Amino acid sequence: MADHNALPLVILAEQFAKLPGIGMKTAQRLAYYVMSMSESDVQAFADAILQAKHRVHNCAICQNLTEQEVCPICGDDRRDHSIICVVESPKDVTAFERTGEYNGTYHVLHGLISPLDGVSPDDLEIRSLLARLQSEPVTEVIMATNPTVEGEATAMYIARLLKPMGVKVSRLAFGLPIGGILEYADEVTLYKALENRNEI
Amino acid sequence: MADHNALPLVILAEQFAKLPGIGMKTAQRLAYYVMSMSESDVQAFADAILQAKHRVHNCAICQNLTEQEVCPICGDDRRDHSIICVVESPKDVTAFERTGEYNGTYHVLHGLISPLDGVSPDDLEIRSLLARLQSEPVTEVIMATNPTVEGEATAMYIARLLKPMGVKVSRLAFGLPIGGILEYADEVTLYKALENRNEI
Repeated sequence: MADHNALPLVILAEQFAKLPGIGMKTAQRLAYYVMSMSESDVQAFADAILQAKHRVHNCAICQNLTEQEVCPICGDDRRDHSIICVVESPKDVTAFERTGEYNGTYHVLHGLISPLDGVSPDDLEIRSLLARLQSEPVTEVIMATNPTVEGEATAMYIARLLKPMGVKVSRLAFGLPIGGILEYADEVTLYKALENRNEI
Repeated sequence: MADHNALPLVILAEQFAKLPGIGMKTAQRLAYYVMSMSESDVQAFADAILQAKHRVHNCAICQNLTEQEVCPICGDDRRDHSIICVVESPKDVTAFERTGEYNGTYHVLHGLISPLDGVSPDDLEIRSLLARLQSEPVTEVIMATNPTVEGEATAMYIARLLKPMGVKVSRLAFGLPIGGILEYADEVTLYKALENRNEI
């Protein structure tokens, strides 16, 4: 924004521009839009940002984002705690829950192994997954990372760690288009991929 | 977001989805992104929103958004205060300032006359424009609203009010493509439109 603009507006536009997929032009439009919102709506927006950051943290068991000590899925006795579906990020949990067909638990890695980006296995929630296998009666671990180079490598790495522990390790069926993004798969494709999972 | 998600995350996604051009899917991605931001970055983001709303208001003279009582353009003695460029919104001021070719002042209407949307002339900053003509030595008013139905109607309405006051009223040259949006015009087109303005 040019220097005739009010500084708080320029700062707000710069903040919006930091968000993924939001360029400077869109950021400016959003900043102007905030100016047209009511006082209480603006307060609610700012509160929502702070509350989400302050009140939400990782589940002590599956590492998914939650407000409680243990997330609703891990705390649900009706779910099958002998199956763990390992995913890259919390939004993948949302994608599987949308199918309505999976009744096991999850484990969120919060990333994928990617040496080029400096992400090593130690940066992911792998140790907490191994700990679960020792404390819970787990019979199967489903590797549900994206069908990309990093997703495949991470699935293989974890599978090799788990095999000696005597647990069945399976991989999502490749009904998913290779190179695609799990989050955008439709419910039926995702359910088929889950149903046809193969042992690695 | 499904009900297994933490409530503060759902609330934040709903807040993002209220912004123009941001759908529920993008809103969810942004909410997850906020979770991955550092504590201080999140605080800075929330502060920027509140500060913009609290510290920025309309200039007492031209009604453009500013932090001060009078905006930097209205308060600049080197600018030509005998010419007023009337625009729909603050972002149009930014567009003209980018040309670097206009040295007069502005007047921001904060909307266009649109009976279908229930916007009447009384809802716009037209009264404050008429007041300026009485207190400032204005010789020309340039109607620089968008070349759309509402923009044309608003320009014509204001021109008819101003003519009896003995001031020259001009309209941007139609170098601008009809039906287009002023904000997205390139600098040269906008400068040409300004240069070839015609008396209405």
